[in-house]
Amino acid sequence: MAFRMASSRQFLSDNAARVHPRVWQAMRDADGPDLPYDGDALSKRLDVVFSDLFGRPCAVIWASTGTAANCLALATMVEPHGGVVCHRESHIESDECGAPGFYLHGAKLLLADGSGAKLDVGGIEAVLAGITRGIHQVQAHAVSITQASEYGLAYAPDELVAIGALARAHGLGLHMDGARFANAAAWLGCSAAEAAGPVDALSFGCTKNGAMDAEALLFFDEGKADLARWRRKRAGHLHSKGRFVAAQILALVEHGLWLELAGQANAAAAEIAGGAGGRLLFAPQSNELFVRLTPAERATLRGQGFAFYDWDDGTARFVCSWDTRQEDALALARAIAAI
Amino acid sequence: MAFRMASSRQFLSDNAARVHPRVWQAMRDADGPDLPYDGDALSKRLDVVFSDLFGRPCAVIWASTGTAANCLALATMVEPHGGVVCHRESHIESDECGAPGFYLHGAKLLLADGSGAKLDVGGIEAVLAGITRGIHQVQAHAVSITQASEYGLAYAPDELVAIGALARAHGLGLHMDGARFANAAAWLGCSAAEAAGPVDALSFGCTKNGAMDAEALLFFDEGKADLARWRRKRAGHLHSKGRFVAAQILALVEHGLWLELAGQANAAAAEIAGGAGGRLLFAPQSNELFVRLTPAERATLRGQGFAFYDWDDGTARFVCSWDTRQEDALALARAIAAI
Amino acid sequence: MAFRMASSRQFLSDNAARVHPRVWQAMRDADGPDLPYDGDALSKRLDVVFSDLFGRPCAVIWASTGTAANCLALATMVEPHGGVVCHRESHIESDECGAPGFYLHGAKLLLADGSGAKLDVGGIEAVLAGITRGIHQVQAHAVSITQASEYGLAYAPDELVAIGALARAHGLGLHMDGARFANAAAWLGCSAAEAAGPVDALSFGCTKNGAMDAEALLFFDEGKADLARWRRKRAGHLHSKGRFVAAQILALVEHGLWLELAGQANAAAAEIAGGAGGRLLFAPQSNELFVRLTPAERATLRGQGFAFYDWDDGTARFVCSWDTRQEDALALARAIAAI
Amino acid sequence: MAFRMASSRQFLSDNAARVHPRVWQAMRDADGPDLPYDGDALSKRLDVVFSDLFGRPCAVIWASTGTAANCLALATMVEPHGGVVCHRESHIESDECGAPGFYLHGAKLLLADGSGAKLDVGGIEAVLAGITRGIHQVQAHAVSITQASEYGLAYAPDELVAIGALARAHGLGLHMDGARFANAAAWLGCSAAEAAGPVDALSFGCTKNGAMDAEALLFFDEGKADLARWRRKRAGHLHSKGRFVAAQILALVEHGLWLELAGQANAAAAEIAGGAGGRLLFAPQSNELFVRLTPAERATLRGQGFAFYDWDDGTARFVCSWDTRQEDALALARAIAAI
Repeated sequence: MAFRMASSRQFLSDNAARVHPRVWQAMRDADGPDLPYDGDALSKRLDVVFSDLFGRPCAVIWASTGTAANCLALATMVEPHGGVVCHRESHIESDECGAPGFYLHGAKLLLADGSGAKLDVGGIEAVLAGITRGIHQVQAHAVSITQASEYGLAYAPDELVAIGALARAHGLGLHMDGARFANAAAWLGCSAAEAAGPVDALSFGCTKNGAMDAEALLFFDEGKADLARWRRKRAGHLHSKGRFVAAQILALVEHGLWLELAGQANAAAAEIAGGAGGRLLFAPQSNELFVRLTPAERATLRGQGFAFYDWDDGTARFVCSWDTRQEDALALARAIAAI
Repeated sequence: MAFRMASSRQFLSDNAARVHPRVWQAMRDADGPDLPYDGDALSKRLDVVFSDLFGRPCAVIWASTGTAANCLALATMVEPHGGVVCHRESHIESDECGAPGFYLHGAKLLLADGSGAKLDVGGIEAVLAGITRGIHQVQAHAVSITQASEYGLAYAPDELVAIGALARAHGLGLHMDGARFANAAAWLGCSAAEAAGPVDALSFGCTKNGAMDAEALLFFDEGKADLARWRRKRAGHLHSKGRFVAAQILALVEHGLWLELAGQANAAAAEIAGGAGGRLLFAPQSNELFVRLTPAERATLRGQGFAFYDWDDGTARFVCSWDTRQEDALALARAIAAI
Repeated sequence: MAFRMASSRQFLSDNAARVHPRVWQAMRDADGPDLPYDGDALSKRLDVVFSDLFGRPCAVIWASTGTAANCLALATMVEPHGGVVCHRESHIESDECGAPGFYLHGAKLLLADGSGAKLDVGGIEAVLAGITRGIHQVQAHAVSITQASEYGLAYAPDELVAIGALARAHGLGLHMDGARFANAAAWLGCSAAEAAGPVDALSFGCTKNGAMDAEALLFFDEGKADLARWRRKRAGHLHSKGRFVAAQILALVEHGLWLELAGQANAAAAEIAGGAGGRLLFAPQSNELFVRLTPAERATLRGQGFAFYDWDDGTARFVCSWDTRQEDALALARAIAAI
Repeated sequence: MAFRMASSRQFLSDNAARVHPRVWQAMRDADGPDLPYDGDALSKRLDVVFSDLFGRPCAVIWASTGTAANCLALATMVEPHGGVVCHRESHIESDECGAPGFYLHGAKLLLADGSGAKLDVGGIEAVLAGITRGIHQVQAHAVSITQASEYGLAYAPDELVAIGALARAHGLGLHMDGARFANAAAWLGCSAAEAAGPVDALSFGCTKNGAMDAEALLFFDEGKADLARWRRKRAGHLHSKGRFVAAQILALVEHGLWLELAGQANAAAAEIAGGAGGRLLFAPQSNELFVRLTPAERATLRGQGFAFYDWDDGTARFVCSWDTRQEDALALARAIAAI
């Protein structure tokens, strides 16, 4: 790749963003000696902080990647002979190189359809209705949804309630991939609990939102958390200096920084959306947006220094981060409008 | 645990040590935007740096834990129906909660004996000789050794050559768990290449030697490295901001800091050994030592503020780190001598 | 299920058929003492018999179920992090309860479309073209096709050659699920080699064709066969009295009985097809056919004692066996025509 | 192998024995059409027959090999991150080519010692006592014992009660590999229930005792049986013509044939033991015995046409079957005595 990241006009990925200064500071502060693994004081504080934030008791473990968090969560809900209903365009299906198959020991992803990479009751029911062959066919054990979705769309609280009711009615676990949970919550303007809905486990993303390598994995069931702890160790994800992972999460969550940073990223995306107008695939509900642009138009934008990915569906994807400058978003908005 | 880490007299674990200032600096310097995963400039520099250090071409990927590095290495050498000859007291057998079974899809650890948790030709041959039942029994596909061993002992270059020859003769892969490779190399005073010997893959540990969460996994065979890349991603170990992992490794390796820090830790251990004398289980060859102490004697030392673990074999384990102060090591040496 | 199998009018499944008298005799003849597992004389004869039949050297192992044969074959071609391109309606996808995920350690089925549950070059290429995300996405390692397909359609030799060329061009293994290979070969009227085409491994089905519990798994590459032997044992499929499995296969294959029985089943299906006329989903190319019938029409047929399954696509499935009496097939043909 | 099985003097394995005439008859009788898989009338009768035999409700599934039965049983008790305490010389450890690692998705066998390949409370407790490292070490989830043991020794009812109490106290599942359960029960002269003791699952062997390829897997907990059904299908062990497997089991169990045949085999072994006298490793408690013989002595016996295996411990193993002729056992006894 001849790509150069020197430009500030990068809209490729929120993974390309910087680490927030307060996260850096928290990590430095964690650098006294403490007990290894998750025996340190910071790791132990996570339960309380998240139970407060979500208004119900939860057990929290950290992981250093979203893929690990998602798969550890699902491993507590899905037997190796079972399946996970998820969207055909979900991250666990398309972007984790089969990690769910690995962590779940061969369990299957059962692909559902739904607009904007969001599942809905109808889409899930269609998958379940197709399971007709008894012992000969993989049965669903869980549902996994993504908040915000791969197309940057947020599930509204009532949508989550409906999906939760469906999952319960069928005895299925419910997991939320919240790699961009903060962006969804900021856009929804509701409480964290409402933005999560009745999920059993939530991968609460931090890395895309100002952390370096930290995701919080929340369980609203201590038994599942305990199971996940064994699986985390066994997957080589129990960092020996876990205090530094915990520190990142606490820096974002304890005083509301997570929502603030997500709001900044969302605002930048909204700025761009203003310029994209009818070219938008969806009105943005988080920090990413997909714009219909011809190859020539993309070349023009790239010629102006804007960096972004071409998406499978033929659109161009633009992702904003906490550190996207509003002026750069504005410049992009104008550039698109001017095409 | 009522343990308090406030004391500077901690000899519990090199995982409890601090991150070295030059590692911090390198991480901060890595905090401009760059391509995610391992597409960044730092990750790409690893091959050259390590090929230089080892004097032969190697392909290097990073991982954030030693368990992941070990298991990814072995996964390139061992079929799911095969086995790994390793020491009965090795880390992969005793301290990774079955991670090899997970990463290798059920492959088996075939336990060998050997003094000081070191394998030798005789011990390996004894395991191989016990595989007599053809298709009914798990066959060895690889050998894994630990440099320095769980008892802090180093393999001398000629020992490695002998084990390498045996492995080759039997068509077995050879892996080295080098969580404390730096300490072994520093003690041996030989080149990195000699301290590694004819291994196919080396987990080159950094976390215990001044890094935060970084291990380099070296392959002297590009095919194996490529395989490991897929497995790493699938195990959720491809950090999205991998530049920060690479930065840690480069900070330690590019200008020799790794050997310097390991030498400091070894020196502290040597200091303590001076006081322990005949109580030592083994003369130290790295940064850890095991001392015969009665429960009462341990209580005395703990009463003086020294923190350490009781080992399974009935000794007390003391581990020094790059940031162990020589004066604390001396104080411990005197305290042991005075008992 | 209140179903009664007393009726001779069963068209439910070729698995419900009887064991052929010559298979029984061969099993009885195998009942002297011989070496256990596959050390017996019969098991050792398989290579020669099939190499003769296919006109090229092949290494053959037996298995007692088609699911085991398919999955053992694929396990020799697909790494745990890889995928298998197969039809959306294939047996490995829909009817093996995730067995491929188990045997392949989490590898993924990559679903392709194609008329009549047959893959074609375009369908396979479409799947491959959708793999665009490099390390983040599961890559194809093999293609699996079914001869005859789940809709009873046969791949013609030139179709197999085209698929084989595509697989080779992409470095993919090629497996054939031949649960009804005999029926396809009988219909095609070509040699066994032509009906198999350039596959790397073939699950040569016997159980649906007069055997009790026996499938031959053919490899045209000794290395893969050796790998499969380890995996078979490890999957608990190395029967201790394997001579009885081998005997069944030899009884069918050594003197052409396999083709004869398949021909009988095909003839019965053709008889029924004559009566079904325009109601047929496809003109039959083996021993099963799918007929468009309303619920009322099905009830009528069932009222006349005919037993058959309703298929997912809304048709009724009728399967003939070697022991389907031509008079029963004729009666069914007339009954359908008379509706 | 130049071995010829023509001789009636084979004491190699009970797997080399013939199928009993009543088993053959039952299989032939099963050869009308019936529903496939385990939907047939015979498969459905198993629960009642075994519940009667064991005097408590049990749910029974069949499998065609002992390895499959053992591993399916354990898969209902052991999480992938857990372990199974078993004897160092047990079949699951030494003779199943890692099948437990496969079926249990990487779970570990935790090896215990005990005389005559039997576990006892002390041996199990020693293994449990060695699990000291919390999250870093594989925890025991189950215990597996073998009735009769690999050395042909039977667990007395009170020994089973003691092991059961220990398992319960530690929250561990208890599995019995009963490949030679019939021989143990016949020797003990107690009820089937007493010979099984308080196990959660029992692999009730039939193949070594007159069947062709049939093992009954008994669960005294319907939840576990249900789990095993999914795993069986997924392992490719749900034979499509399962009625023939069920028929074999019923032929042996419904009218006491299983005990009768085991008694014959035991009697033959006892005959040989009479001749072996002080050369015996253990007084036989089932149908196999181990005799101290020098290489020259073995050669002498082999020269007289006796076939047997050399065992790892330096003894010669002799196994009797239901069809071992008493005169051949006597001849062997005399030959050994005459050496």
